[in-house]
Amino acid sequence: MPIYQSPLRDMQFILHEVLRVSEDETPGFADLDRDTTGAILEEAGRVAAEVLLPLNLVGDREGCRLENGVVRTPEGFKDAMRAMREGGWTSIDCDPAYGGQGLPYVMHTAAQEAFVSANMAFNMYQGLTHGAYSAIHIHGTEAQRQAYLPRLTTCEWTGTMNLTEPHAGTDLGIMRTRAVPNGDGTYAVTGQKIFISSGEHDLAENIIHLVLAKIPGGPEGTKGVSLFIVPKYLVNEDGSLGARNALSCGKLEEKMGIHGNATCVMNFDGATGYLLGDEHKGMRAMFTMMNEARLGVALQGYAQAEIAYQNALAYARERLQGRDLTGAKNPNAHADPIIVHPDVRRSLMDQKSFCEGARAFTYWGATLIDRSHRAGDQDAEGLISLLTPVLKGFQTDKGFEMAVAAQQLYGGHGYIEEWGMSQYVRDARIAMIYEGANGIQALDLVGRKLAAGGGKPIMGLFEQIKSFIKAHEEDADLKAQVLDPLKAASKDLQAAAMFFMGAAGKNPNDALAGATDFLHMMGHVCLGYMWARMAVAARAALAAGAEDRAFYETKLATARYYAARQLPATGMHLARIQSGAAPVMALEAASF
Amino acid sequence: MPIYQSPLRDMQFILHEVLRVSEDETPGFADLDRDTTGAILEEAGRVAAEVLLPLNLVGDREGCRLENGVVRTPEGFKDAMRAMREGGWTSIDCDPAYGGQGLPYVMHTAAQEAFVSANMAFNMYQGLTHGAYSAIHIHGTEAQRQAYLPRLTTCEWTGTMNLTEPHAGTDLGIMRTRAVPNGDGTYAVTGQKIFISSGEHDLAENIIHLVLAKIPGGPEGTKGVSLFIVPKYLVNEDGSLGARNALSCGKLEEKMGIHGNATCVMNFDGATGYLLGDEHKGMRAMFTMMNEARLGVALQGYAQAEIAYQNALAYARERLQGRDLTGAKNPNAHADPIIVHPDVRRSLMDQKSFCEGARAFTYWGATLIDRSHRAGDQDAEGLISLLTPVLKGFQTDKGFEMAVAAQQLYGGHGYIEEWGMSQYVRDARIAMIYEGANGIQALDLVGRKLAAGGGKPIMGLFEQIKSFIKAHEEDADLKAQVLDPLKAASKDLQAAAMFFMGAAGKNPNDALAGATDFLHMMGHVCLGYMWARMAVAARAALAAGAEDRAFYETKLATARYYAARQLPATGMHLARIQSGAAPVMALEAASF
Repeated sequence: MPIYQSPLRDMQFILHEVLRVSEDETPGFADLDRDTTGAILEEAGRVAAEVLLPLNLVGDREGCRLENGVVRTPEGFKDAMRAMREGGWTSIDCDPAYGGQGLPYVMHTAAQEAFVSANMAFNMYQGLTHGAYSAIHIHGTEAQRQAYLPRLTTCEWTGTMNLTEPHAGTDLGIMRTRAVPNGDGTYAVTGQKIFISSGEHDLAENIIHLVLAKIPGGPEGTKGVSLFIVPKYLVNEDGSLGARNALSCGKLEEKMGIHGNATCVMNFDGATGYLLGDEHKGMRAMFTMMNEARLGVALQGYAQAEIAYQNALAYARERLQGRDLTGAKNPNAHADPIIVHPDVRRSLMDQKSFCEGARAFTYWGATLIDRSHRAGDQDAEGLISLLTPVLKGFQTDKGFEMAVAAQQLYGGHGYIEEWGMSQYVRDARIAMIYEGANGIQALDLVGRKLAAGGGKPIMGLFEQIKSFIKAHEEDADLKAQVLDPLKAASKDLQAAAMFFMGAAGKNPNDALAGATDFLHMMGHVCLGYMWARMAVAARAALAAGAEDRAFYETKLATARYYAARQLPATGMHLARIQSGAAPVMALEAASF
Repeated sequence: MPIYQSPLRDMQFILHEVLRVSEDETPGFADLDRDTTGAILEEAGRVAAEVLLPLNLVGDREGCRLENGVVRTPEGFKDAMRAMREGGWTSIDCDPAYGGQGLPYVMHTAAQEAFVSANMAFNMYQGLTHGAYSAIHIHGTEAQRQAYLPRLTTCEWTGTMNLTEPHAGTDLGIMRTRAVPNGDGTYAVTGQKIFISSGEHDLAENIIHLVLAKIPGGPEGTKGVSLFIVPKYLVNEDGSLGARNALSCGKLEEKMGIHGNATCVMNFDGATGYLLGDEHKGMRAMFTMMNEARLGVALQGYAQAEIAYQNALAYARERLQGRDLTGAKNPNAHADPIIVHPDVRRSLMDQKSFCEGARAFTYWGATLIDRSHRAGDQDAEGLISLLTPVLKGFQTDKGFEMAVAAQQLYGGHGYIEEWGMSQYVRDARIAMIYEGANGIQALDLVGRKLAAGGGKPIMGLFEQIKSFIKAHEEDADLKAQVLDPLKAASKDLQAAAMFFMGAAGKNPNDALAGATDFLHMMGHVCLGYMWARMAVAARAALAAGAEDRAFYETKLATARYYAARQLPATGMHLARIQSGAAPVMALEAASF
């Protein structure tokens, strides 16, 4: 049976000692003292371990079933959803005007981490609902907010996002779903959407579908796409449920993982829809939620790596196989635990340094979203828009890689389903694909975000890292072991950005051919920066005579590991980028 | 429905233009002219595509079932096995004295590639049988050979390898299975073995289990392990089947992939066993087959990547999404095929350059095995022993990574089982684990093979690469684009080896902490060397006025790609290695 323990101490270290959230002047942050965050996150961890974790393997094995148009979720999911509602876990950062608790998004994010680690497929029902909540909160009329938000806040109703069609995934401009005005202000929505997570299920009284569709006569391409609220049951004026809408789940997809989440083909047959936001501005409405939605997927990337790591660590401490070549560590037994072996430890350090670095990066991103949304901080908005593709792409690529590494430590036991390690790999795989496949994230980063705001966000990031290094490099050990490697990695990244700028005017493919390498370089620089900040915080705590010295010493050792073993990747990525588009584009499509 | 076409032209290019097998003086090679290899490989490709490929998805979906001790394989597997037997595909390189065709192992390997690409799980029944054949051929008495080999050659009987126990995987010295002498020359074998591929099934009349067990009173650890032949049905003197032996399949494992192959828990309850080879020399007997068995797994690594790549390429040419940013390529349709996008092309080039490089490396390895086995070439034996962990570890790690990359190009369609891409990823995953997990391969390479023979094999490899570069560097383009990057990568590898030698006397962990990085560096150098040889062969063909210019130009472009985009990885691995054991071993096991 897989284990999970929410890393409460690590979460609080990042919140209070690295990000110093209590000292942030953004509304809501002053309430986040250590006692408050500790109480919330401890309870979230308990719910994750006791309620959600036991259902993770169940969900994987049972999957969802479609019978006569009704989707049944795995045994226990209904009770778990009730527990999530009753514990208030669905409403942490929602608007108090609609039943939410009004806490910052970063607290929602930290609590989500535990839920996603323990049961990613289950948590998606809530995650999609949060997305629908945000869309209606930002773009809805007050009447729409009143009608839908209070029930979405509690997950009494859940939400979905209907974007993809069989022939239109990344390229939404070519979608075929149509929304024809009914003449009474509503629209008749007709078309087929695929890969709709939580599209139909038995966990909620109503499902509020957000559907992208084209209004006939509108502009071509993505400029003619509008966003609609299409509820499974129409909602009466008094809030009660009315008629069943003309939409149905045509099929459940059989997937590599996240079996506990119903991935639906949704058929809309003249379903009644309500325009959300402005006509033809559906893509823009989607974009305003995108940083948040993608941060949620970035979190899935490392949250799956985290639970895989926790189990691999426990296994490495228990599994006896071979001897420490520098001397037996367990002489009374027939073998030593495999954690004595350097290659096992290398893998565990890879996993640990990634998970902890990604956690810091993600929480930092969440505070930027808070500053942007709650305090109208334009710099924070620019920075998080720049960082979003890196968070999503890097953390899901690496999160998957680390889940595979954790599985590997189990040998054959990792490959059979009994131990649960295969599931982390299979579940983590989807995060590289949905919410914009990672190649699209790289394209977004290099093709759009680097140059956004005249390059101010990226220059600001370089400046921030440079200033941080400068402010702390009087400490010789820290400088040599952590800050110098970060400086070198950051310089590699700047050189790559310069290469793109030089190339951009001549051949855009020179930049695009290096997009994924750039995304990964930037991921390493960001995690290297997080590790530098964690190292500085750890040294400060040690200098201040903190009691828990082992905790801080471990942070310093892990920071050194990341600098020594992960940051050298930037040189490789730079060399690839600087080779330009020629090697990549040399062949004709027919010559492969 | 997935596609597969055996890459016949590429196979022959490697055999005849790069390795020049017909000019090899090893027995059996003189027969390998172009017509012969072409006829064999074309027919193998046909069988793979027409017989095995259609059963691949079937095998994944149906899996195997255990009912009353009987294992039923998926629909169609019996017919396919009959087709393999009747076509002679099970006996290509087997000894003519026992019904084999006596062709070189490299021909077996090339034919296997097509079978493994088309249906890895099915082909394992044959693959394990070939391993059992080799073990009995090398270590058996003439009576044992006569009794078992003719039926193993045809796969009328199949074979297994019983090594792993619940508590003993990598560390076989701690196994508990016992073989007690019956007094009549036979042994009573008792114990439980797990993860036994093809352990029980309905594809053959008899199953010949090779079982590692300890004879009571023998030495401790691996020095007390013996190898036994334990048939499912005892074989009478006249070759007919006798009594059912005291062994059974207790359970089928549910696995991440290779569902079509029965992975069994095998219980031996005083089963009659026959000693194979000498008492207590079972591990040595296993080792003599290891290069061959591991090369077979190395082949699985790239063969799965190959079929995944072929499908991803077809999809990338057909799927219309977005526009070429340098100008529409498909202006009459609503979008361009995604192969126009540089990041898609980068991924395809990664896959293509890996698969073709790995094919050359594997076939080269197979010819070294031929030279070693058929001509007693000690240098070839030393070199293949050195290269084996690299072939197995690098090619299965990268093969999996490339299958994931191919799946990624399908977006959401790659994650659902319908398109078959998930299966390649799930199937390829096992190759990193079995036949010695890849961490063990790295340990074998750095801890044993580097220093083997006083370092002669590794020095010989460096010398061979250096001489090759020197012999061809008068061509300025080739030098700059392919040979110089190979030289730099080879120098990085030598620097890493020097670091290990300097460190070895002081702290063995300095080498062990860099073992996986070294294995990957060496994999890149070997594939870089293969690409240099392919480039030289391609230039020679072009200079000689070859008709198929496009084929050779494509080879040159792909060689340049590998040099520009893959070889820079060696610098990263070297930096990690040179950081030594300190960052890896800094934490106490309790501090993670």
